Amino acid sequence: MAVAAPTVSELCAGARRAARHLAQLDRGAKDAALHAIADALEARTPEILEANARDMEAGREASLSDALLDRLRLDEQRVAAIAAQVRDIAALPDPVGEVIDGQRLPNGLALRRVRVPLGVVGVVYEARPNVTIDAAALCLKAGNAIVLRGSSSAAHSNDVLARVAAEASGLPKGAVTLLGGGRETLAELATQDGVVDLVIPRGGEGLKKALEAVATVPVIYAASGNCHVYVDASADLDAAEAIVVNAKTQRPGVCNAAETLLVHADASRELIPRIARRLAAEGVELRLDGRAGTLAGDGHAAATDEDWDTEYLALILAVGVVDSVDEAIEHVNRHGSGHSEAIVTRDLAAARAFQLRVDAACVYVNASTRFTDGGEFGMGAEIGNSTQKLHARGPIGLRELCTYKYLVEGDGHVR
Amino acid sequence: MAVAAPTVSELCAGARRAARHLAQLDRGAKDAALHAIADALEARTPEILEANARDMEAGREASLSDALLDRLRLDEQRVAAIAAQVRDIAALPDPVGEVIDGQRLPNGLALRRVRVPLGVVGVVYEARPNVTIDAAALCLKAGNAIVLRGSSSAAHSNDVLARVAAEASGLPKGAVTLLGGGRETLAELATQDGVVDLVIPRGGEGLKKALEAVATVPVIYAASGNCHVYVDASADLDAAEAIVVNAKTQRPGVCNAAETLLVHADASRELIPRIARRLAAEGVELRLDGRAGTLAGDGHAAATDEDWDTEYLALILAVGVVDSVDEAIEHVNRHGSGHSEAIVTRDLAAARAFQLRVDAACVYVNASTRFTDGGEFGMGAEIGNSTQKLHARGPIGLRELCTYKYLVEGDGHVR
Repeated sequence: MAVAAPTVSELCAGARRAARHLAQLDRGAKDAALHAIADALEARTPEILEANARDMEAGREASLSDALLDRLRLDEQRVAAIAAQVRDIAALPDPVGEVIDGQRLPNGLALRRVRVPLGVVGVVYEARPNVTIDAAALCLKAGNAIVLRGSSSAAHSNDVLARVAAEASGLPKGAVTLLGGGRETLAELATQDGVVDLVIPRGGEGLKKALEAVATVPVIYAASGNCHVYVDASADLDAAEAIVVNAKTQRPGVCNAAETLLVHADASRELIPRIARRLAAEGVELRLDGRAGTLAGDGHAAATDEDWDTEYLALILAVGVVDSVDEAIEHVNRHGSGHSEAIVTRDLAAARAFQLRVDAACVYVNASTRFTDGGEFGMGAEIGNSTQKLHARGPIGLRELCTYKYLVEGDGHVR
Repeated sequence: MAVAAPTVSELCAGARRAARHLAQLDRGAKDAALHAIADALEARTPEILEANARDMEAGREASLSDALLDRLRLDEQRVAAIAAQVRDIAALPDPVGEVIDGQRLPNGLALRRVRVPLGVVGVVYEARPNVTIDAAALCLKAGNAIVLRGSSSAAHSNDVLARVAAEASGLPKGAVTLLGGGRETLAELATQDGVVDLVIPRGGEGLKKALEAVATVPVIYAASGNCHVYVDASADLDAAEAIVVNAKTQRPGVCNAAETLLVHADASRELIPRIARRLAAEGVELRLDGRAGTLAGDGHAAATDEDWDTEYLALILAVGVVDSVDEAIEHVNRHGSGHSEAIVTRDLAAARAFQLRVDAACVYVNASTRFTDGGEFGMGAEIGNSTQKLHARGPIGLRELCTYKYLVEGDGHVR
């Protein structure tokens, strides 16, 4: 006898019911569920790899690029790493129940603002199957039910991973739900008003645009990062070189990599030739404004207006010369995406001005933009990175997957 | 020579420029601007009242209701009260620059999360002209530029109030901007992506719906409040009566007034007849479920399914009998709007269950729902009240008009 598959809206309603239960769990119960998931991932690795092999085969038949196939691929080490990450998340402090602030009001009412789960979090993601588990572990630890919508290219891997998590956790049905792929599923998930509390996309611009076009529930769009390093007149040039090289080359394809280098005119004569040689050795292509071009020597392209607004996500760096920290700040605020911005300086007034006036999620003094990351910031893990100003700015960790409520206690108080 | 009036998008761009400046002001400068506004409101009262008289005359000609005319009306006392409110806001602590949290990371990076202004806040409001000044004072204190869009019925009053604020403040042009009325203005304001950081509507359902249909910038929708008082088996019935009467009658037209009373069966035999008499004396109409109806005596209407979901905003109260705190919590979570919910009890386990499991912005034990208010909560003032879970839940005060940024300091740190 055929049984109709549940609809997206039925699945989300089930997630909502589970969320009511999850919100009341204490830390011990949540951590036990996460450890059970980690153990099950290891115990059921052969089953996971078999499912992944089917996705890989389909991917090769569909001529996916080597980069995409590598993102899709699981092996024993990668599954072990996913399980280890779940245990790391279990070890993090419980954000739920944390008293954010509180006071006794003049009339004697006791007021506390307490962190509580959001409820149901939807996560929409592309190829990487590890996101299935990473996102589920973070959401469960924060007391939320999760509704996952992965890409069809990873369907078998995601399916077995989500099943392992749901079965091993011992949590109520609906705590971890995987939806099928397809645009209709996305639209249905993103319009479950009053049922889904937040959707977080993890993927490229295409996914974001598709979601923007349909979403009526709250969405936190993962950040694009047009990040700058500004080297001030007084900078230590060794530090400047190290920071620029790190911010550009350590992992060029991520949102906190630097895309533009601005150099104060007073430092440019020494720094630009030096850094041009070093970056050339690192395989970085430069796009230079007029003054930087003169100093860098031959063989480099000229920067166009478009370069200042481009997130290359590649070994390309735009370089410009400015005459003051003010001009640098103005450039950053005009062209930056509000992600991560760095100044290299020994001058306190310049550092202070840059920190005060640059409008971005993370503003660095004498450090690489690459540190913008939930793990680096001591949040343990992140589900994404936000450049929006409401709710969460910067890394989205466990606390950012929560809301709060006011608890107010009196003894018959009336107004 | 005629000069073309600036467009909404030009005015918002001007607000954005002003916001960059406002974000850097210290508390002294902001408070001085607010005091100058308060003084100017008093000094220019005749001019304000003259403008208001023109709106009142037009309102009478347009046959506005007495209630609307009263909301529109200004007099010397009301202007003085507006000025006093501005001074109260000046006296509040500066939310900007507040270090929310911070730490030294294992690698030595110093990390601080610091509250900063949102940037440009749009406030869309209906008749009351005092909102022009209240909202401007809150936004300026939080370092934001404000773009106001009031109703055309208060156009003359709003215009002179906004001019007084802009001129007296000594702040850059664009710090306080009033747009003309009309649906086109609303749509233009609500689609200034990347320029307007937040729009807050203060008005009825019509305004919310109009905004929902067009907005692409972030909006915090002011709350509707279907609030409950649940009287538990063990409640002190004197306290219960006082809280129910206060929550229902002290100001029935506001969102934190109670709309439904739930009574535990064990308390119902004594409480319901008593409270029915008392509420009748206060002019409250009751809508009763079967059991409550039997206890309350004749002359009351029966509650329909619709009553449990209705925010009356009037002297009407739905009353139901439940058999347990669990049943009460379930009813509240099914029918409530997540605003303010109260339990009256002497039983610690019941209080704890209600606080833990009721999903609402403000959960009260032995106190009236009417306390949900920025002023009552010690936030000094509020620009609205949120039932959404992202960014701000409950009263929206100065802190909620801010975002934050991470400031990270190293000495050449690379990853």
